[in-house]
Amino acid sequence: MVVVAWDGDAVRFLDQRHLPHEVRYVRARNVDDIVGAIQTLAVRGAPCIGVFGAYGVALLRACIDDEQEFLAAAQRVRAARPTAVNLAWAVDRVLAATDPLREARAIHEEQIAIDAAIGDNGLALIPKGARVLTHCNTGPLATAGGGTALGVIISAQRGGKKPRVFVDETRPLLQGSRLNYYELREAGVDAVLITDAAAAITMKEQQVDLAIVGADRIARNGDTANKIGTYGLAILCAHRGIPFYVAAPRSTFDFSIESGQQIPIEERPAEEVVSFAGTRVAPNDAAVYNPAFDVTPGHLITAFVTEYGILHAPYGESIPQLEHRPAFGLLTST
Amino acid sequence: MVVVAWDGDAVRFLDQRHLPHEVRYVRARNVDDIVGAIQTLAVRGAPCIGVFGAYGVALLRACIDDEQEFLAAAQRVRAARPTAVNLAWAVDRVLAATDPLREARAIHEEQIAIDAAIGDNGLALIPKGARVLTHCNTGPLATAGGGTALGVIISAQRGGKKPRVFVDETRPLLQGSRLNYYELREAGVDAVLITDAAAAITMKEQQVDLAIVGADRIARNGDTANKIGTYGLAILCAHRGIPFYVAAPRSTFDFSIESGQQIPIEERPAEEVVSFAGTRVAPNDAAVYNPAFDVTPGHLITAFVTEYGILHAPYGESIPQLEHRPAFGLLTST
Repeated sequence: MVVVAWDGDAVRFLDQRHLPHEVRYVRARNVDDIVGAIQTLAVRGAPCIGVFGAYGVALLRACIDDEQEFLAAAQRVRAARPTAVNLAWAVDRVLAATDPLREARAIHEEQIAIDAAIGDNGLALIPKGARVLTHCNTGPLATAGGGTALGVIISAQRGGKKPRVFVDETRPLLQGSRLNYYELREAGVDAVLITDAAAAITMKEQQVDLAIVGADRIARNGDTANKIGTYGLAILCAHRGIPFYVAAPRSTFDFSIESGQQIPIEERPAEEVVSFAGTRVAPNDAAVYNPAFDVTPGHLITAFVTEYGILHAPYGESIPQLEHRPAFGLLTST
Repeated sequence: MVVVAWDGDAVRFLDQRHLPHEVRYVRARNVDDIVGAIQTLAVRGAPCIGVFGAYGVALLRACIDDEQEFLAAAQRVRAARPTAVNLAWAVDRVLAATDPLREARAIHEEQIAIDAAIGDNGLALIPKGARVLTHCNTGPLATAGGGTALGVIISAQRGGKKPRVFVDETRPLLQGSRLNYYELREAGVDAVLITDAAAAITMKEQQVDLAIVGADRIARNGDTANKIGTYGLAILCAHRGIPFYVAAPRSTFDFSIESGQQIPIEERPAEEVVSFAGTRVAPNDAAVYNPAFDVTPGHLITAFVTEYGILHAPYGESIPQLEHRPAFGLLTST
């Protein structure tokens, strides 16, 4: 599935807001289009936003002659979503390059190579016919590559392992129902949608063999911030003796923090919980606690799948070793 | 809050489908009104349906002269929702009574007395200022009395304990957002709405002191069927060392089954999961696993709160002792 692509005089992207009902491609042709696509979540997922922003700045470089005007436009793209670290990093790389379009393509190709390596490395963790549980969206839509946790699952499907995958709907924003389920089905995977609250009985009644999720930020000791609900899922897995895996590229590891205690819990608007698609389900002025993600302690994580291989405990040793590995991907191999 | 009441020539009830946005009372005046209210979920919650059905049959007795016609109408009410055991039981009691209205009132008053006793007995479990987590709807709307788990919480509020209550939204049907949150706020309780997937981080970040839920069916060993999500919540509590209580009247204990293995897991339509508040959120033909409830093993339950007092482990002893206790409530005390 093409999520983001260079298209001559535009950046072409899949507008994720219309999924799963409609596959609608849009061409971003100027800075307003690019910033708008990011801010309205038409393009989402930190790695995917990075790739899109890189192409976006390459496009602006090609069509804005005035240097001051170009730099101001690039800064607008860079700041379109401050929490997506990949975006600022990708924009800076393109700005520093002599050939902006070549650099944007390299960023995209690196992402594809990293995701492919994660998919390959994770294969060993998926038994033939495995019953897998996953949470949130971690496929091509989120990375513009092959995906992280979903990349491992799709890789297992392509390898003939025919996994059966239980997909948490992932309230409040339903990335599981809207995006993850859609991506699995597009890849021909046998996928079954469940509510988040059904995870425990699904593990018991449907004999789940393993759970695999993505990550937003991983500390040196393995503590992992990810979409709200991940921590509860990891506890359920520990209780039932089910392996719990996290698939993430090295860029998700934050070597500057020792533990999850240094990760602030971001709270999102109450609106996400009290209504859905414009329909209100709770009193207008309901008090809501709506953390966007939670932190799973490293000791609940069976292993990490990265582009460099699988990391096992003790994470206090295996994760810091990642920090000084050479950069991965096409740029370094040529 | 009046949920169901006798109103001279009608049964007056709160139409729960319009909550929390509108408090709309409706008068059921004939068999079609009564059956319709039950089947459309305008009246819901097994004990509440029982009370409503009892008044309904008393109403039919008063306004239908022909005996055959009356019995046929009563049977329609009795069969309006086959899974609500309280309904058939209440209709049969009214049919067997010499004064149908008096019997219906007695059923209602018994329910109120039982709920009040559950509320009183549970008080000892709620510390002052406790932070409480609950799931699904277990208040007056569900029982036409004071409620079970919510009854305990409201009783603690009235006792000046000022609990702070985290309310799971309870997908897929959102009884938590729509009904439980509403009832807590009506009772002046400090309530905070969360998604089901936020329960684990809420326990950690908000220092939850205890969880309390209701039940649909309890086996002799304490295994408890309740709304989907209860089992996962009990595992989270065990993991974090938080007491997990179940509040339920004796009528919820099924003394005929030894364990939860004898409780079949009812599956509900996929539609409940693939759409949210009327908006479709997953592909039309999505495969869905949608169990309506799950079974929590007795060993994860810290105690049961009943109208007879608190039951502690070993449940294999304390639960069977309930079976032969004298009937509770006003009828037996007069």
